[in-house]
Amino acid sequence: MTQAPAARTALDSVLDRIDQDLPQAVDRLIELLRIPSISTDPAFNADSARAADWLGKDLAAIGFDASVRPTPGQPMVMGRHQGPGRHILFYGHYDVQPVDPLSLWDRDPFDPELQDTPGGKVIRGRGASDDKGQLMTFIEACRAWKAVHGSLPGNLTIFLEGEEESGSPSLVPFMRENADELRSDLALICDTGLFADKPAIVTMLRGITGDEITITAASKDLHSGMYGGLAMNPARVLTKILGAMFDDQGRITIPGFYDDVAELPDAMRAQWQGLGFDHAGFLDEVGLSVPAGEQDRTPLEMLWSRPTAEINGIWGGYQGAGSKTVIPSQAHAKLTFRLVPGMDPDRVQRAFRDWVRAQIPADCEVTFKGKDGAPASEMSIEDPAFEAARLALSEEWGVPAAFVGCGGSIPIAGHFKTVLGTDAMLVGFGRDDDQIHSPNEKYDLKSFHKGIRSWARILDRIAG
Amino acid sequence: MTQAPAARTALDSVLDRIDQDLPQAVDRLIELLRIPSISTDPAFNADSARAADWLGKDLAAIGFDASVRPTPGQPMVMGRHQGPGRHILFYGHYDVQPVDPLSLWDRDPFDPELQDTPGGKVIRGRGASDDKGQLMTFIEACRAWKAVHGSLPGNLTIFLEGEEESGSPSLVPFMRENADELRSDLALICDTGLFADKPAIVTMLRGITGDEITITAASKDLHSGMYGGLAMNPARVLTKILGAMFDDQGRITIPGFYDDVAELPDAMRAQWQGLGFDHAGFLDEVGLSVPAGEQDRTPLEMLWSRPTAEINGIWGGYQGAGSKTVIPSQAHAKLTFRLVPGMDPDRVQRAFRDWVRAQIPADCEVTFKGKDGAPASEMSIEDPAFEAARLALSEEWGVPAAFVGCGGSIPIAGHFKTVLGTDAMLVGFGRDDDQIHSPNEKYDLKSFHKGIRSWARILDRIAG
Repeated sequence: MTQAPAARTALDSVLDRIDQDLPQAVDRLIELLRIPSISTDPAFNADSARAADWLGKDLAAIGFDASVRPTPGQPMVMGRHQGPGRHILFYGHYDVQPVDPLSLWDRDPFDPELQDTPGGKVIRGRGASDDKGQLMTFIEACRAWKAVHGSLPGNLTIFLEGEEESGSPSLVPFMRENADELRSDLALICDTGLFADKPAIVTMLRGITGDEITITAASKDLHSGMYGGLAMNPARVLTKILGAMFDDQGRITIPGFYDDVAELPDAMRAQWQGLGFDHAGFLDEVGLSVPAGEQDRTPLEMLWSRPTAEINGIWGGYQGAGSKTVIPSQAHAKLTFRLVPGMDPDRVQRAFRDWVRAQIPADCEVTFKGKDGAPASEMSIEDPAFEAARLALSEEWGVPAAFVGCGGSIPIAGHFKTVLGTDAMLVGFGRDDDQIHSPNEKYDLKSFHKGIRSWARILDRIAG
Repeated sequence: MTQAPAARTALDSVLDRIDQDLPQAVDRLIELLRIPSISTDPAFNADSARAADWLGKDLAAIGFDASVRPTPGQPMVMGRHQGPGRHILFYGHYDVQPVDPLSLWDRDPFDPELQDTPGGKVIRGRGASDDKGQLMTFIEACRAWKAVHGSLPGNLTIFLEGEEESGSPSLVPFMRENADELRSDLALICDTGLFADKPAIVTMLRGITGDEITITAASKDLHSGMYGGLAMNPARVLTKILGAMFDDQGRITIPGFYDDVAELPDAMRAQWQGLGFDHAGFLDEVGLSVPAGEQDRTPLEMLWSRPTAEINGIWGGYQGAGSKTVIPSQAHAKLTFRLVPGMDPDRVQRAFRDWVRAQIPADCEVTFKGKDGAPASEMSIEDPAFEAARLALSEEWGVPAAFVGCGGSIPIAGHFKTVLGTDAMLVGFGRDDDQIHSPNEKYDLKSFHKGIRSWARILDRIAG
């Protein structure tokens, strides 16, 4: 006796279509990954324009009313589909991180390919996971939907920026100027990851602020024999200040730094403890073993609900081959601070600067080159779309999806709320070992494939 | 009644010849300065060979039995003149410092020229003062001597190396292998300067040792959002260690660092106080005002008789335009320590390494890339040549010459003593504002001219 097949739904057809079209979807992603749209370095501005143009054309090809909008920085890409139901906006970013140190890449970061690895097939290249591969999951879901249904789903706007990796300087002005188009009932953001192989919806994101400091001592580099012992070395001043930024318990010593930090609600702490985070395995994967944060906090608190101070770069004096017996004139550092709910980016930057200035010797000077920061975000999960998405993700991945935190900063989530009054839902399919911001970035083919299918399932529940 | 002219001596003829030949001497120096013989960077090895060849040919042209001798590094240049009297050896170095930061040079460092400045004519270019201009003062004195006398002075060897700026790795092995040729009754070294416009003979030189340290935390660069707070940042470790290298009184905190430091003899301290060193003016010239060394020491002690620790270079993470939210995998620093009599270079390096290692967290690694150091030198001034040279210098410059210290390290002086048993006398004509090791290096035409004349006077008193 044969079992009757279950009735095939329109969603099934979309999922089938996604499966059949996967090789072509990979080819399209690889084409986009070939464009080195590094937003932080003006040398790549033309490439950013090329990536925006590529996306605008692709959106138009699948039926969006698409446009590439100039800004003082990299262009925005907009795609609009007027349809029934709640207005849903999807956000992603097409810019990528710089690729240095290039010598640590196994292949050209902008010559991507589909590779077999012991862990399965991966798409390797800069931006594969952050965020070109992720934003394409949504576009591919729309493409399949259109192929099956003949039209795009519901009432949809796609909004792609090209400056996320350089602090999104044009984003808020653009949002303000185009608020009518961008204001929506819910924003979907695809720039996060799975949590230990489980699908996850992020409800808490750290904010960020940063600064670049330059300490100048002598008016020129000095001979360390002729002047050494009498002339102040700015690297001595810089290391003294930054070297005292943490106490022995891993706490940041900048006065006032923790003043506004909100404690994690007990309920959330309990839920996080239930996630069974394997911090030892997480650290072991990158060759580490000792949690570096405040010693009285759990590893997930260190990552998701406690602020940080990181030296992203430090430099001064001679770095070349051999030695150079010089007392440098200047020493520099780039820092970022991850912020948690309660902290004000400007206040943190002020506290840092006050603390540094108070430690500069009489004959040294300090200058700062900071930029706008973004506060942390906490999502309200009262919108029923959150539970609908959780169910859709659970169905696709075969395990219950979780509400989690995220240590990274996706300032866009906060901007949607504060500038447009729109709540955001963060769903993504990256993995901890994707090596985003690092050499040999990759995106699992499984993430890409099930990511596309996940969006089809989510749209099926919330669109139209 | 007219006064009869004083009898003209052979020395007067040599000095006249030097005056007449000065424009040609400048041209020759400029030709040598055009060769970018940067010893510390292997990319310039062919240029070092070219500089050695140029000098070998010039020595042969004025009658030396000249040869360019290969070493595992840059070649040595030797010139021998067998003559009567004590065997006198002259040492200089033809290699120069790297030129970065190139953007701070007013012209190509290897396109030297004679320039008019408010302070008088100068020869501008990398190596003009350190040490090509200085070594040419001696060669030009020999050239004039030969022109007037028909032969070179006395019993003379010229010995020029090409690795002084990169720690002279080939020097001691070469000295050992060629000890019979190099052993002499007195070594003259021209790599020092005037003291506040007065001619000076250096009798105390600091030694040097150094190290390059690399601290490795994670196995790759990490995203500062995804890992920040949980993963150790090697720049945090590096700044913590180096930031505690000095106490609030300017003392170096490395355990044992001062154990073997010899106190300055009272007689020398008294003589130095009599030099009237204007430390405020010395610092003011480079935009500084506060003596940075041990607060209970005089400025001249800080410079000449106290040890130092200097960060010559520090680097790690992102240094490019914009920001990169990365936790670097590695952080690095290059350091040198100036040593004073009593200190053993190896023991100082060991003390530094032990101190660093004791502060490395469990999951970080540290590696060191040091090189051989050289102890400090104190000259014996019992050899009558010292007083003869002091008188010759006083005559030429019209002011009494002084015995002084020097903060720089000229390890060759120590090597002459320890390897060959030869005492060294250090006479040079550089000025504090020559910007050696810095952009826009220059040598005063007055230093060059009177330097040549000074050597003629000294040779007249001590050679043959």
